[in-house]
Amino acid sequence: MKALYITEPHHIELIEKDDPEIRENESLLKILGCGVCGTDLKIYKGETLATYPIIPGHEIVGEIINSSKYEKGTKVTVDPNKPCGYCKYCREGKPHLCDDLKAVGVNRNGGFAELLSVPNDLIYPLNENIDVKSALFAEPLSCIIHGIDLSNFSFTDDIAIIGGGAIGLIFAMLFNKFSVGIKLIFEISQDKITYIEKEFGFDIVHPQEYKKFKEFDLVIECSGSISGLELAYTLVKKGGKIIVFGVTPKGLTTTELEPFQIYSEEITLTGSYINPFTMQKAVKIINSKEFPFHKLLTDQASLQDINEYISGNKHPFLKAAYINK
Amino acid sequence: MKALYITEPHHIELIEKDDPEIRENESLLKILGCGVCGTDLKIYKGETLATYPIIPGHEIVGEIINSSKYEKGTKVTVDPNKPCGYCKYCREGKPHLCDDLKAVGVNRNGGFAELLSVPNDLIYPLNENIDVKSALFAEPLSCIIHGIDLSNFSFTDDIAIIGGGAIGLIFAMLFNKFSVGIKLIFEISQDKITYIEKEFGFDIVHPQEYKKFKEFDLVIECSGSISGLELAYTLVKKGGKIIVFGVTPKGLTTTELEPFQIYSEEITLTGSYINPFTMQKAVKIINSKEFPFHKLLTDQASLQDINEYISGNKHPFLKAAYINK
Amino acid sequence: MKALYITEPHHIELIEKDDPEIRENESLLKILGCGVCGTDLKIYKGETLATYPIIPGHEIVGEIINSSKYEKGTKVTVDPNKPCGYCKYCREGKPHLCDDLKAVGVNRNGGFAELLSVPNDLIYPLNENIDVKSALFAEPLSCIIHGIDLSNFSFTDDIAIIGGGAIGLIFAMLFNKFSVGIKLIFEISQDKITYIEKEFGFDIVHPQEYKKFKEFDLVIECSGSISGLELAYTLVKKGGKIIVFGVTPKGLTTTELEPFQIYSEEITLTGSYINPFTMQKAVKIINSKEFPFHKLLTDQASLQDINEYISGNKHPFLKAAYINK
Amino acid sequence: MKALYITEPHHIELIEKDDPEIRENESLLKILGCGVCGTDLKIYKGETLATYPIIPGHEIVGEIINSSKYEKGTKVTVDPNKPCGYCKYCREGKPHLCDDLKAVGVNRNGGFAELLSVPNDLIYPLNENIDVKSALFAEPLSCIIHGIDLSNFSFTDDIAIIGGGAIGLIFAMLFNKFSVGIKLIFEISQDKITYIEKEFGFDIVHPQEYKKFKEFDLVIECSGSISGLELAYTLVKKGGKIIVFGVTPKGLTTTELEPFQIYSEEITLTGSYINPFTMQKAVKIINSKEFPFHKLLTDQASLQDINEYISGNKHPFLKAAYINK
Ligand SMILES: NC(=O)c1ccc[n+]([C@@H]2O[C@H](COP(=O)([O-])OP(=O)(O)OC[C@H]3O[C@@H](n4cnc5c(N)ncnc54)[C@H](OP(=O)(O)O)[C@@H]3O)[C@@H](O)[C@H]2O)c1
Ligand SMILES: NC(=O)c1ccc[n+]([C@@H]2O[C@H](COP(=O)([O-])OP(=O)(O)OC[C@H]3O[C@@H](n4cnc5c(N)ncnc54)[C@H](OP(=O)(O)O)[C@@H]3O)[C@@H](O)[C@H]2O)c1
Ligand SMILES: NC(=O)c1ccc[n+]([C@@H]2O[C@H](COP(=O)([O-])OP(=O)(O)OC[C@H]3O[C@@H](n4cnc5c(N)ncnc54)[C@H](OP(=O)(O)O)[C@@H]3O)[C@@H](O)[C@H]2O)c1
Ligand SMILES: NC(=O)c1ccc[n+]([C@@H]2O[C@H](COP(=O)([O-])OP(=O)(O)OC[C@H]3O[C@@H](n4cnc5c(N)ncnc54)[C@H](OP(=O)(O)O)[C@@H]3O)[C@@H](O)[C@H]2O)c1
Ligand SMILES: [Zn+2]
Ligand SMILES: [Zn+2]
Ligand SMILES: [Zn+2]
Ligand SMILES: [Zn+2]
Repeated sequence: MKALYITEPHHIELIEKDDPEIRENESLLKILGCGVCGTDLKIYKGETLATYPIIPGHEIVGEIINSSKYEKGTKVTVDPNKPCGYCKYCREGKPHLCDDLKAVGVNRNGGFAELLSVPNDLIYPLNENIDVKSALFAEPLSCIIHGIDLSNFSFTDDIAIIGGGAIGLIFAMLFNKFSVGIKLIFEISQDKITYIEKEFGFDIVHPQEYKKFKEFDLVIECSGSISGLELAYTLVKKGGKIIVFGVTPKGLTTTELEPFQIYSEEITLTGSYINPFTMQKAVKIINSKEFPFHKLLTDQASLQDINEYISGNKHPFLKAAYINK
Repeated sequence: MKALYITEPHHIELIEKDDPEIRENESLLKILGCGVCGTDLKIYKGETLATYPIIPGHEIVGEIINSSKYEKGTKVTVDPNKPCGYCKYCREGKPHLCDDLKAVGVNRNGGFAELLSVPNDLIYPLNENIDVKSALFAEPLSCIIHGIDLSNFSFTDDIAIIGGGAIGLIFAMLFNKFSVGIKLIFEISQDKITYIEKEFGFDIVHPQEYKKFKEFDLVIECSGSISGLELAYTLVKKGGKIIVFGVTPKGLTTTELEPFQIYSEEITLTGSYINPFTMQKAVKIINSKEFPFHKLLTDQASLQDINEYISGNKHPFLKAAYINK
Repeated sequence: MKALYITEPHHIELIEKDDPEIRENESLLKILGCGVCGTDLKIYKGETLATYPIIPGHEIVGEIINSSKYEKGTKVTVDPNKPCGYCKYCREGKPHLCDDLKAVGVNRNGGFAELLSVPNDLIYPLNENIDVKSALFAEPLSCIIHGIDLSNFSFTDDIAIIGGGAIGLIFAMLFNKFSVGIKLIFEISQDKITYIEKEFGFDIVHPQEYKKFKEFDLVIECSGSISGLELAYTLVKKGGKIIVFGVTPKGLTTTELEPFQIYSEEITLTGSYINPFTMQKAVKIINSKEFPFHKLLTDQASLQDINEYISGNKHPFLKAAYINK
Repeated sequence: MKALYITEPHHIELIEKDDPEIRENESLLKILGCGVCGTDLKIYKGETLATYPIIPGHEIVGEIINSSKYEKGTKVTVDPNKPCGYCKYCREGKPHLCDDLKAVGVNRNGGFAELLSVPNDLIYPLNENIDVKSALFAEPLSCIIHGIDLSNFSFTDDIAIIGGGAIGLIFAMLFNKFSVGIKLIFEISQDKITYIEKEFGFDIVHPQEYKKFKEFDLVIECSGSISGLELAYTLVKKGGKIIVFGVTPKGLTTTELEPFQIYSEEITLTGSYINPFTMQKAVKIINSKEFPFHKLLTDQASLQDINEYISGNKHPFLKAAYINK
């Protein structure tokens, strides 16, 4: 089969290699598509604890080729994360905080290939009629569902979403349905503001244009920037919650957190990390066809060409994926 | 009656004035005791939105003298906080976040006097056999109960308490009963460390002596300092919670909050502000006599002498109160 | 003014009486409309602890005529329930469970009149552009919001609604927006089934037509019947929840509750009683204009004619209200 | 090795058989002790879906004999329950509701033997200094912790415990520490009332002696009887919760549940089923040595003699266990 190999940081190549071996309790998938995520770029640059050489890719849609568990031809997606089952976090029901978490596309081969063998317990069947371009969002969606679960939001909440990337837009899609309150995206790229207003019809504003304060019950930080988080402090109202969903680089600190505000306005900040027990809900939402996830896929490429996005040479407008035709 | 009057910031005096008028739905109390709290010092210094002239004092124990609601002679404590009932916070069941909150001892006369008239709905009867020195802690205890309610603690949690003042020690008393996990106080004053070990038998350590990290499910910041909060970031374990209970001065900021840690370790920070709906629980705990709150009262004074503590000339070792003999 | 008076059980008459006095902290309303609810029929029949003589009516829309708090001409709705503020329930933040709860239209005059004076803290302003026929549903909606709050529902839940009356249909409206799961109404009247399918487009079924079991995460019992609750036991899936929202007559018992099922399938049953702190959310939802509440108002009448519905001579198809033109 | 074998319902015998094979990811234990539980009696009588022939016993304390995961000589306990990992319940984080749950001592051999091989992920190490008689309670304790987790109890709650068996007494031990409210056991056996008062010092009463009603925030039904559950309805106060912990036989129904009470007093009933993610907390509590669990072990026997308790010929006063000396 063909596969994209990161042999060591900064070296990625399309190679021809043997088809994957199917170990016990695994199924073989034909890859139908695989999304590119920030983590793939970090693996390329050597900024994570990935195991090299590695085929990256963890936002996977495939079709069952060979399996003793799932029917041949079933369209499926994959939960990349495999907890150890022994550490104190696994044993208290928080597998995503596992002290020895492994992930498909990080510690074992992933989706930027023609074929992939994965453990059966990570496989989630999709409805037959779901298009690959929507199904590609199952894994990021599962993370977002975890974020929403942690937010304890109410259907009357006023909600600010900081960052109008693919992640921010999925939050916006969901909250536009699930809350009758204000839903407002904050985004700094004027191009994206124009595009999102036109294509999605969402309320979106540049932070500098916004003059009100302390108006939101819930603020989702998904720009992954310090300035985004500091904006959150000014937007959240008394008793409100900030979800730290964006991944700010390690070592960067926020210097404007005033503990007096946290105390006197009873603000809550909560981190949201990946997707414990939410993959099944994500699949249910994808299967419901209520949301146009495919519209987020602005850049698609062949296996050959997707490495431009993985190595950071090309930037997608919203989201890039490899589609195996 | 005699009363301590703050006529304007930095002016406090013991005066003789008319006994308070009892308005509708109010009862007249003889003050048995009134604790001194940081807020009293701020009122003295003009650092809050108090209404001058004012008799300060909101940690009140009294005895009913004249009332159409409560029996004469009843020992009572007082919830100082009176929400407006109309603002959006009051109407969603968060009276402590009221946009127009008034408080006894802040916006109307308080407990540093011989007599006090207070609204009936702020009065909470105590058991007859409760000593004044324990009952004085009902109001701070009610704030602490709110903090614990917000912490969602489990009875197996490992808990760090930052700051070994009266507040930290009440948290320690409660958690020593209510959790089987580790309970460890962090305190910077060597005198207090020695005293607390001896008098209370609690585990207590100087932050510099502590070499482990990320060990606690729950961290209660009650030193009211930036360094205390920054210590909390190093103590909290994955999935853990920090309660911002201490009141850091307005304008001070923490500069070491790494959003990457909040995200990847799923840390939660929550402010805890005063005492919504917890006064009754505080009274129940006081009445249970399970905790030696009176041992926290290291400094007691007459009405004449308590103003030294209010004006900050004297500092109590743990806690000061006016006791009306 | 004209008003409907229940002088004693089973005696209702339209009388001419003096305009209401406005006491302190009250405002005078011109009644624009008032819905008829099961409680009004119970007051007529003498089945509640109402205070006679009484003008019933607690689902009120009015316009401010005279007030020191609200602007003249403001369209408003009213929270009928007035807790005592002293009992243990009030003091623990559960005012709806108050030991001495009073209600407009039950213990003091209500909305079946031309004018009404009500305490200011029970008044909630509405947007000017909201029609009376939708605003009439604010109070029942506030009860429903409480039921939903107690249900801890997730936006992927499969939900069964037992009873296709006005209450069941409001639940259906909300859940059709707020959940992507199955939403299915169970109703025994074939007329209503036909009407609801046609007018609202909801999925609805007769219990006898339904052959699956244990399929729903959440079951809302709002038929107010024993058979409805017993149906709920068969519909709820493992780990699921039944909200007992319908009001079954006092003294009736369910005889098919198998504790083994409650235990081994971890079922939860929770009662939902009136509307603590949810009136403001109800108004927000009404103001959002996202739901066609007015379509539930199948029967409207003048003050003169509405007593036919209060005394039970006439039954509305879904909901009756007095509209003051 | 020697083992107790239930070859088919109603046939139990002590046999000599080959030492167990250690499969992949398993460890071999020497059994130090194994508690007898109601489930063992049901397996004997053929009232469960056990797989015959079977060595029963799931309340296990052992010592590692042979393992690639745990150190030889480690004292351990075992979580008997093994979820499938694929069903919808497993995938939403509710493994105890698994559609295909298997258990040690039910579907594979258990602890009434000299040796046992169990999957590593079911093994929990204990502190070395913990005596076997206390450690035997780890598994029931883990179920109780789940019940408490579901109860959302507060440390000021008044709590009724129905049934003074081993389970009720563990609840009482925990709540006597974790709540300052009333803790009262209801028990029908006069012998047990006398014994428990004397040996444990708990407040305990015969239901017929108790004349108050609606006094408890939380009621734990752990008598496993219909009359116990019906008692719970009379004890729970407004807004209160009943935990259905006791296992009433399949098919029995409660005939006194008045839905009007559930609604108007906002009562909650919740089932509690086994021990999801609570085994680690149970071990932490056992290791804390704060509770005298060993005092519950009123009947101990050799492997030879314990079958009298499994077959129901002998009844323990509180709890029986096989101790391997
Ligand atoms: N918590 C989890 O489990 C999880 C899962 C998946 C993803 N994530 C994280 O979620 C974040 C969003 O992902 P994404 O794919 O949507 O990323 P993205 O495409 O980079 O989107 C971020 C958007 O935020 C904008 N932005 C940057 N600074 C801003 C500010 N101060 N205010 C407002 N907008 C600002 C960016 O504008 P420009 O394009 O002009 O810079 C960009 O449009 C990332 O940090 C990602 O790592 C977290
Ligand atoms: N949230 C609420 O509703 C609420 C209610 C009541 C009180 N409070 C707040 O709770 C806090 C504690 O009250 P308190 O009466 O106990 O105050 P306190 O007597 O001043 O106690 C604070 C203790 O923390 C110690 N400390 C200072 N910096 C520290 C650090 N970096 N690490 C460890 N310990 C440190 C102090 O030592 P030194 O004495 O040597 O400085 C002192 O012993 C205050 O900020 C108060 O305003 C909040
Ligand atoms: N919890 C609260 O705070 C609160 C607030 C407001 C209202 N409520 C209660 O909510 C309930 C519903 O109110 P509503 O105004 O909608 O009443 P409704 O108009 O009487 O509606 C009940 C519907 O349920 C149907 N029904 C009766 N038995 C049934 C069964 N076994 N299975 C399925 N459907 C059945 C009835 O059909 P038929 O018409 O053919 O009988 C009717 O259409 C009432 O009990 C009311 O008292 C509670
Ligand atoms: N939910 C779970 O995950 C889980 C886990 C373990 C155990 N359990 C269940 O928990 C229950 C208790 O276990 P156990 O080992 O303690 O059982 P047990 O020894 O049989 O104790 C039950 C006690 O309740 C008493 N009793 C019976 N009816 C009563 C009534 N109406 N009012 C008050 N007391 C009454 C019994 O008295 P007599 O002895 O005189 O009959 C007995 O002392 C059992 O049903 C068991 O199956 C559940
Ligand atoms: Zn792990
Ligand atoms: Zn207010
Ligand atoms: Zn009340
Ligand atoms: Zn399963």
